[in-house]
Amino acid sequence: MIEKRMRWGIATLLCLLLLGITPVAAADSSGAATLAEDPFAPVNFTWVLICAFLVMLMQAGFAMVETGFTRAKNAVNIMMKNLMDFSLGSLAYWAVGFGLMFGTASGITGLILGLDGFFLVGESYDVSTIELWFFQMVFCATAATIVSGAMAERTKFSTYMMYSVIISALIYPIYGHWVWGGGWLMASDFMVALGGGYGVLDFAGSGVVHAIGGFVALAGALVLGPRIGKYRKDGTPVAIPGHSMTLAMLGIFILWFGWFGFNPGSTLAATELRISIIAANTCLAAAAGAVTTMFITWWRFGKPDASMAGNGVLGGLVAITAPCAWVSPPAAVLIGIIAGFVVYLGVWVMDWKFHIDDPVGAVSVHGFNGLWGLLALGLFADGTYGVYTTEGPMVAGLLFGNAGFFAVQLIDAAVVFIWAFGLGYIMFRILDRAVGIRETPQEEVDGLDIGEHGVAAYPNFVLTEPAIDGEIP
Amino acid sequence: MIEKRMRWGIATLLCLLLLGITPVAAADSSGAATLAEDPFAPVNFTWVLICAFLVMLMQAGFAMVETGFTRAKNAVNIMMKNLMDFSLGSLAYWAVGFGLMFGTASGITGLILGLDGFFLVGESYDVSTIELWFFQMVFCATAATIVSGAMAERTKFSTYMMYSVIISALIYPIYGHWVWGGGWLMASDFMVALGGGYGVLDFAGSGVVHAIGGFVALAGALVLGPRIGKYRKDGTPVAIPGHSMTLAMLGIFILWFGWFGFNPGSTLAATELRISIIAANTCLAAAAGAVTTMFITWWRFGKPDASMAGNGVLGGLVAITAPCAWVSPPAAVLIGIIAGFVVYLGVWVMDWKFHIDDPVGAVSVHGFNGLWGLLALGLFADGTYGVYTTEGPMVAGLLFGNAGFFAVQLIDAAVVFIWAFGLGYIMFRILDRAVGIRETPQEEVDGLDIGEHGVAAYPNFVLTEPAIDGEIP
Amino acid sequence: MIEKRMRWGIATLLCLLLLGITPVAAADSSGAATLAEDPFAPVNFTWVLICAFLVMLMQAGFAMVETGFTRAKNAVNIMMKNLMDFSLGSLAYWAVGFGLMFGTASGITGLILGLDGFFLVGESYDVSTIELWFFQMVFCATAATIVSGAMAERTKFSTYMMYSVIISALIYPIYGHWVWGGGWLMASDFMVALGGGYGVLDFAGSGVVHAIGGFVALAGALVLGPRIGKYRKDGTPVAIPGHSMTLAMLGIFILWFGWFGFNPGSTLAATELRISIIAANTCLAAAAGAVTTMFITWWRFGKPDASMAGNGVLGGLVAITAPCAWVSPPAAVLIGIIAGFVVYLGVWVMDWKFHIDDPVGAVSVHGFNGLWGLLALGLFADGTYGVYTTEGPMVAGLLFGNAGFFAVQLIDAAVVFIWAFGLGYIMFRILDRAVGIRETPQEEVDGLDIGEHGVAAYPNFVLTEPAIDGEIP
Repeated sequence: MIEKRMRWGIATLLCLLLLGITPVAAADSSGAATLAEDPFAPVNFTWVLICAFLVMLMQAGFAMVETGFTRAKNAVNIMMKNLMDFSLGSLAYWAVGFGLMFGTASGITGLILGLDGFFLVGESYDVSTIELWFFQMVFCATAATIVSGAMAERTKFSTYMMYSVIISALIYPIYGHWVWGGGWLMASDFMVALGGGYGVLDFAGSGVVHAIGGFVALAGALVLGPRIGKYRKDGTPVAIPGHSMTLAMLGIFILWFGWFGFNPGSTLAATELRISIIAANTCLAAAAGAVTTMFITWWRFGKPDASMAGNGVLGGLVAITAPCAWVSPPAAVLIGIIAGFVVYLGVWVMDWKFHIDDPVGAVSVHGFNGLWGLLALGLFADGTYGVYTTEGPMVAGLLFGNAGFFAVQLIDAAVVFIWAFGLGYIMFRILDRAVGIRETPQEEVDGLDIGEHGVAAYPNFVLTEPAIDGEIP
Repeated sequence: MIEKRMRWGIATLLCLLLLGITPVAAADSSGAATLAEDPFAPVNFTWVLICAFLVMLMQAGFAMVETGFTRAKNAVNIMMKNLMDFSLGSLAYWAVGFGLMFGTASGITGLILGLDGFFLVGESYDVSTIELWFFQMVFCATAATIVSGAMAERTKFSTYMMYSVIISALIYPIYGHWVWGGGWLMASDFMVALGGGYGVLDFAGSGVVHAIGGFVALAGALVLGPRIGKYRKDGTPVAIPGHSMTLAMLGIFILWFGWFGFNPGSTLAATELRISIIAANTCLAAAAGAVTTMFITWWRFGKPDASMAGNGVLGGLVAITAPCAWVSPPAAVLIGIIAGFVVYLGVWVMDWKFHIDDPVGAVSVHGFNGLWGLLALGLFADGTYGVYTTEGPMVAGLLFGNAGFFAVQLIDAAVVFIWAFGLGYIMFRILDRAVGIRETPQEEVDGLDIGEHGVAAYPNFVLTEPAIDGEIP
Repeated sequence: MIEKRMRWGIATLLCLLLLGITPVAAADSSGAATLAEDPFAPVNFTWVLICAFLVMLMQAGFAMVETGFTRAKNAVNIMMKNLMDFSLGSLAYWAVGFGLMFGTASGITGLILGLDGFFLVGESYDVSTIELWFFQMVFCATAATIVSGAMAERTKFSTYMMYSVIISALIYPIYGHWVWGGGWLMASDFMVALGGGYGVLDFAGSGVVHAIGGFVALAGALVLGPRIGKYRKDGTPVAIPGHSMTLAMLGIFILWFGWFGFNPGSTLAATELRISIIAANTCLAAAAGAVTTMFITWWRFGKPDASMAGNGVLGGLVAITAPCAWVSPPAAVLIGIIAGFVVYLGVWVMDWKFHIDDPVGAVSVHGFNGLWGLLALGLFADGTYGVYTTEGPMVAGLLFGNAGFFAVQLIDAAVVFIWAFGLGYIMFRILDRAVGIRETPQEEVDGLDIGEHGVAAYPNFVLTEPAIDGEIP
């Protein structure tokens, strides 16, 4: 068995070595030709790369939010999941995902997926191609990591890692191809005609990143079932407070910060000066989401709730992600306010109606608000900015007279839900059959840190008895 | 009552909708015209926006410092205050503040405040205007959040939110107009003549941001009174240690990082290559402040004190904020050393002489060192850089032969103190009368997290008895 | 005694004042001349400065990793060491280090060290010189702070501060001059001839920064001896778990983020579009390192280990730091995989064979992988990028036919080990004789926070008894 593993390992290393010493094709590996052609290349590279760095830091934000909103006994496990979905995810996106998403393919095939650019070798060993890969890789990693929150505190670590590879190599990139890579949602004649000159738009990925992540998360939470002790026999949910509100809020701030790379960076060029309006819209929607959820909880429960306010920030950010480039600041505030309601209602519906246990609210924040973002773009696009560029045609939504574009966005919302939830559900069912998806009840009650990783997160601190954890069935 | 609220809510939403679908004026919303005019626009936008993102992250730094330096029972409350002063503050600055600060106004009125640009609609729906808004908004939010530290552990949350709106919509922007928006301190004939060609200067806001925040904080701490148990009957202060030195120090590092957006970004253009010297000065002053306070505490108490060293960093940063662009590196070190003394003496005077309880030292760090920064600029400006630009006249201070400019800065220091402390005091007195500013003693002793928000920050950890909290009066 | 101190203090202040008011030489202090000559200067400054800001944030990352991997009773001490090695280090590098490293010197002397540019005055009061200083200063601070991890939990604070000044002013800059500043390793006729057109290369400092830090750390850990209770009488190591895996992992993410400034920023120009490939290589090696160490620990111990996975990230990052600009993405993955093995084996050898107590694994991560990075560059450089620039000669390693360059890198690896470990050992031995390097056993058992700083990091939390700490000898 070990020998078989070693044979695989050595084969992998040899393949890498061969790829690493492959003769280089006629791409621009040094950047000299690209610079000679385009004097704006340095500023565009600077902009895109630094924005990508900020997006990468969102991994820390997600890790902090997820661990802060869950219990101390599972903190190591959550940190490991976040570290590994990024590590495995970026390798999977390098080997396979990017080629499927942005590779070239002609005709009908090209409307479905791309077929070159794997491993970034040959023609892809090029400064511009790899700039695009880097920016897209951190987006892929964001979609992957969203899922860990909804599946926290009860998922087998080994199975989680398999999921990470599948979403990064297949689920995310193929849908991504449809919306950003030249696929049917953005470029088929039908969609373009219906939209009035352009098909589905999604500036920075309310759908591509967040709805994908959010609805795969929904499938995962559904297949897993709730944590032990989460629902009483009559279905009433039991609050399971997280172990560190300070780390959770730190995570919220880091995510807010990282989103300024996520949204404005998605111009892929600093020469698109619309970046200032995108940044402003991003901030305003987040602020409006936070204020809205805070007031809702104040009104409903008598006290302003901190974790809901934090999720209000994230809901506003997710909702403005698709429309950020095409709407005005007042519309951004409006989108953020509605996002706050969506977060609140989403959490309520998941907990009280569906009884699906989502420890951090990932489905409401990323899934439901992902859809809201797609529709908001179809409503509020105001005709002041073109299709990912200053040049025409200008993008306008329902309120500015283009009902067809709203229909396009509705179709996209349905497609992303079906794709992410459907494929996610099938994947998790198969994984559950094949290798098992859930921890043993004993390990869940004891905490995954000891069971999965053999360490405690806080060995110098005296912890309270986990009274709310219920009994082992 | 609820219906009245709902009517207000619906009216707000309708107004936003109307603003959101307002026809657009002749501004450059797409950025195409701006780019055509100025090939440096992309690099300048890149620089200013990314610097603004770093400044935004300072919100996380302040949250960490403030919660780390205070007790675990108030951690959720502090995180919420920081989240909400940014959220409400940015909305207030969008609706009102920016227009007052940078709006145009002619003649005498223009020396006092601006009168257009509210809500970023019409002419303001422009890439350059919104770039400026974004950068200034994160500065406004910094001023607002400084106050939460000095008022920590005893302030009513609802009142704090009202304060947040008032400082962001009125107190900060109006003074800001005087120094940065074309108002009387920078542009009146008298000040310009006295300064020898330029009026008040404040590169990145030792006065505009930090002294404003610091002296409103002083007013707040004074009106609130000290925390229960802070002073013995004879007036001797009792040390109330914070609950996490690791989070506090993390906050110090994040603030230091964010300051590299704060100071160098204030050129508002990357074409001002002085940014490298500004960054260097910023770092040197912070380092000098840290080393100085550390040695002072070592000398005075026999042990180097970590929280004072952290505040030394911040004091050095605040002090170099006004002069950073106009002084040489050795002068920056000197300014940082003196800032360390100012922090130490300020904390001592507040605690032992004034008996004003400032849990995190915000008044010393931001208020006193804000004044020192304004004066340091008047002393050390060395004539190597012009008025916010490379072009003349070159700015020189007292040590370089321009005593008039030092006088100008002295006037500014007096004005900012009177404006911030005076208006802050009046505001907090009125708020205290109208709605109450302080928690009940019982809630204060129990912790604001339970009282205000109904949750604990660390439910999985066993906490010590709060022995130092004194008795409920 | 105090008077003597005060006289020294006043003398320092007067010197600073004199330096601060020194007449300015013919350098470009305002930046106007530099801008007029080079229209790419703004984008290059933007790129370099923002990358430097990210590197500065790595200080927070190191602080979090080191404190997270060690015990709660030493948390304040570790934060202070990290704060102070940056503060003192940046001042030392300003006063002395930068001049030794990048100052000009002719002939033989110039092959050893530089001799001007101290204090950034005169000719050095120039926007380009200070841009370089700023970027190099944060690198120097990184080398300095690495050492604190290996020497954690038992080093006298006062001695640590002396060490900080020595490494920043002398050990780091002189070796740095040899590789980056025009010294013999990069520029002597012998090395250039042997390398086939270029001498030692080290893109972002696997050797200059990490091996220097790592092997000074090795010397420190060796001179100090292990923590009380770390090894049983038969030499078996005892695991001493860190107090916060969440803070440690946050630190890992922050370091990963900061490394995107560290490596791509080392082009010192955005016009080098190779930055995108550098960023991609950096990410891939880190991911491969993480995955590799995780699988190794899973295979060896039955459970995937979180702290080893975190160190796998860092090992991959250190190893790719030298070759990042000259290798292809598949080679980067391969380098990262091997780095994971190096980390694992390094930790094992240090603990089980050498019995040298390195609480955070700094020697394996930075020292051993620093050497691996230098050699990996000599192996995998693929001839697609020149010597720190797009222009020729193109850099090729052993696998691409240039065995001489591999020999050059081997020499460098030997030199950096001898220089850092040798000088470090001598320094720590002298410091031990002169002032003592190690805490008293009582203070070590009680925790350095109380002994050195008189405060506890977490006074609101009930801590467990430190059962593993052993008895006081």
